[in-house]
Amino acid sequence: MHIDIISVVPGLLEGPFSHSILKRAEDKGIAKIQLHNLRDFATGKQKQVDDYAFGGGAGMVMMIEPIARCIESLQEKRTYDEIIYMTPDGKRFDQPMANALSLQQNLLILCGHYKGVDERVRERYITKEISIGDYVLSGGELAAAVVADAVIRLIPGVLNDETSALTDSFQDDLLAPPVYTRPAEYEGMNVPEVLLSGHEAKINEWRFEASVRRTKERRPDLMEKSPTKGSDNQ
Amino acid sequence: MHIDIISVVPGLLEGPFSHSILKRAEDKGIAKIQLHNLRDFATGKQKQVDDYAFGGGAGMVMMIEPIARCIESLQEKRTYDEIIYMTPDGKRFDQPMANALSLQQNLLILCGHYKGVDERVRERYITKEISIGDYVLSGGELAAAVVADAVIRLIPGVLNDETSALTDSFQDDLLAPPVYTRPAEYEGMNVPEVLLSGHEAKINEWRFEASVRRTKERRPDLMEKSPTKGSDNQ
Repeated sequence: MHIDIISVVPGLLEGPFSHSILKRAEDKGIAKIQLHNLRDFATGKQKQVDDYAFGGGAGMVMMIEPIARCIESLQEKRTYDEIIYMTPDGKRFDQPMANALSLQQNLLILCGHYKGVDERVRERYITKEISIGDYVLSGGELAAAVVADAVIRLIPGVLNDETSALTDSFQDDLLAPPVYTRPAEYEGMNVPEVLLSGHEAKINEWRFEASVRRTKERRPDLMEKSPTKGSDNQ
Repeated sequence: MHIDIISVVPGLLEGPFSHSILKRAEDKGIAKIQLHNLRDFATGKQKQVDDYAFGGGAGMVMMIEPIARCIESLQEKRTYDEIIYMTPDGKRFDQPMANALSLQQNLLILCGHYKGVDERVRERYITKEISIGDYVLSGGELAAAVVADAVIRLIPGVLNDETSALTDSFQDDLLAPPVYTRPAEYEGMNVPEVLLSGHEAKINEWRFEASVRRTKERRPDLMEKSPTKGSDNQ
């Protein structure tokens, strides 16, 4: 998978992409992320990429011209499966969307900053608008990093053990059960005995029940769409 | 505001916190973020911070001992308003939660990695569990950066113009209207005429209507709880 990311502050993303699984995916040749500085596509002495909003009001708006030049130059090298704009009014990112995107080959992600991009950019170039949640960030960069991380870790071979991703929260509409590791007793707090029993069937049963209980307590909305409780298993 | 962040890969967060508004907030003395490497609190030659899960299965679990040492040493210096654990089964982060956290003085954020932390850490130390959305990341680091960014930008003085945050999406349960900047015409695509009219009342009306229309189309669920459409204004 190849992901191009367009940003006015690409330095913000260097840390996230040079550590952890994103780095590992790149080292293994499974996924490559390339950062593009929008300012390199600005013209004029000031390398201007934003301007005041028509109609007035606080906050700057990212201009269409540098973005158009940047996207079109990237399109000469690659055909994108999706050109994504990170925006709070986009479709909410979730695990099924991460699964779907992990099957793509080439993604282009445009990060908004300031008040966002000129609406005409969205009309002309963007094929998918994604929000990572109902909150506002100072830019789309962290959101793009979140999407890249969630997607890339699902590509086979990125995690050390593939089953590790399959037992995560949300993959089956259940939250993950509690986890424990050594020591078995810590200042009077003990690990549930069943987990020390070595009895695999009982452990699996305990984990499933703990998952269901946690989901019911914390996220009953997930249970409502979960096939594990209904009679309409597919 | 002071935010301490505990992580096994603190380098991942250096980029986000040395750029953009987080850097500006720190330069202005409004907010300070300090990264703490969990490995510094591990004992033994291996500086081990994780171990296999009791009961078996894929994925490593973060041990309670180094985390306990780290949190307790930080608590000697500061009293925390919240000790937050970033986890997919936490309460979903949203703009009201960002507003509330922006009023706090001292926050401690623990980033999970691998399969998460030993459940006893959560029972003993954590006062608030936050999820940034229904998807799984390779660690809590990006999630912590998202929370820090969303919260810090709301502190008065961080953004250049305070009204800039007040007109964001979600602050009034409406999505933001489209924005435009120069040029007024780009390859046949024109800015809506009203925005060029200079007629402030008409511009405000257009923006409000565009916000409502966009919210109805994209996020009718927000409208349902919005006081702007109901008769139960509070």
